[in-house]
Amino acid sequence: MQVKKYRQAEQCFIVQGAKAVKETLSSDFEVSVLLGTSHFLESVGKPLLDNAKEIIEVSERELTAVGSVESNDSALAVVRMKRGEETEVPMDNFSLVLEDIRDPGNLGTIIRTADWYGIRNIIASEETTDIYNPKVINSTMGSFLRMNFRHTSLSAFLANTSLPTFGAFLKGEDVHTVKFPKSGLIIIGNESKGISEKIEKQITHRITIPRFGQAESLNASTATAIVLDNLRRRL
Amino acid sequence: MQVKKYRQAEQCFIVQGAKAVKETLSSDFEVSVLLGTSHFLESVGKPLLDNAKEIIEVSERELTAVGSVESNDSALAVVRMKRGEETEVPMDNFSLVLEDIRDPGNLGTIIRTADWYGIRNIIASEETTDIYNPKVINSTMGSFLRMNFRHTSLSAFLANTSLPTFGAFLKGEDVHTVKFPKSGLIIIGNESKGISEKIEKQITHRITIPRFGQAESLNASTATAIVLDNLRRRL
Repeated sequence: MQVKKYRQAEQCFIVQGAKAVKETLSSDFEVSVLLGTSHFLESVGKPLLDNAKEIIEVSERELTAVGSVESNDSALAVVRMKRGEETEVPMDNFSLVLEDIRDPGNLGTIIRTADWYGIRNIIASEETTDIYNPKVINSTMGSFLRMNFRHTSLSAFLANTSLPTFGAFLKGEDVHTVKFPKSGLIIIGNESKGISEKIEKQITHRITIPRFGQAESLNASTATAIVLDNLRRRL
Repeated sequence: MQVKKYRQAEQCFIVQGAKAVKETLSSDFEVSVLLGTSHFLESVGKPLLDNAKEIIEVSERELTAVGSVESNDSALAVVRMKRGEETEVPMDNFSLVLEDIRDPGNLGTIIRTADWYGIRNIIASEETTDIYNPKVINSTMGSFLRMNFRHTSLSAFLANTSLPTFGAFLKGEDVHTVKFPKSGLIIIGNESKGISEKIEKQITHRITIPRFGQAESLNASTATAIVLDNLRRRL
């Protein structure tokens, strides 16, 4: 489950830690196997445990050994990926488009931030890190449960949308004054290369995060947060 | 150098990668030892190389073996920590105050973002990760060169300042409407616990990042970026 090819073959991924596992049990995701310490299983209670197909009581040591986190004193769930995920982006909200985001921590943070700002759909390039990577799942802090996510060819996707597209560049309209429409797409580029020339040609609105100091650029997840905060502000 | 006690004993830290090492050679930091591939050393040129006390030509393999990054095909510098760093916070600008930021990636990203927004001083609790940790240095993308950073007791520091202090909480004034003064302190809390009760009592202004979706919280470096963007906006 910690390796992409096994996740894909099994169509399952893992969720670790008490809080995230409880949230998953309460969600509409299907939990195939739940590994939990006796303490965790007691604290969860029967109604929620009934949502797991199989339950195995384990020690903290066994849990930590089987998982990918430094230590796990509560639970790990093997969760089935959803089939028939929503594939259309909404025409009445903004969605995020990610071009080759590689760092799992960045991707998880982007999903968490998008969830904070009421984004429900993320379209990612084929080269973007797999959302079901355990490090991504961990750093979303449960927000993966509320996000429709798919990998696809971005240029084909953008060629087929009528939504306005906003990409952050060093030269563009100041994000502090942009009048965002009611719906559209926010494009976030790769951590070191930014938005590629190919995708840049498909972008309808160039925006800029104004700089007041000397850093050359912002981290991709930081830039996402600033754009989304400016997108949502009404004041 | 990759272990804190050795860094402290030697008062040196390491900088890795062509871009960051070149920037360090151009800065007022003292480079004790420069390890570089022949290609890197040629590309840098004599005037800049004269800023290193000792230069050792190495292979890519040796460089990668000695450093902490996955691969390094250019250079590594052993750099002397600055003595007599500025210890007073400016009365005409904002500074950042970090309470127990543990993740090196978060700390590096916070430093990079602070540099983008023209912050020059960071005061960190004793428990905040060491800025000279190689992972922190790497993720600042060179911004450590422009940041005055010190570890101290936060409660003593806050007890002795007359500057207004702003901390983000779930309930406070909407950061989109706060009228920030010309100077002050932005307090950022620990990744999982937020701002402690002890420090909370010393905060003069409670602010809130408005939420439009369902995530329970934001990553610490994300919250820093959103507060700083709102602090600097003039429009």
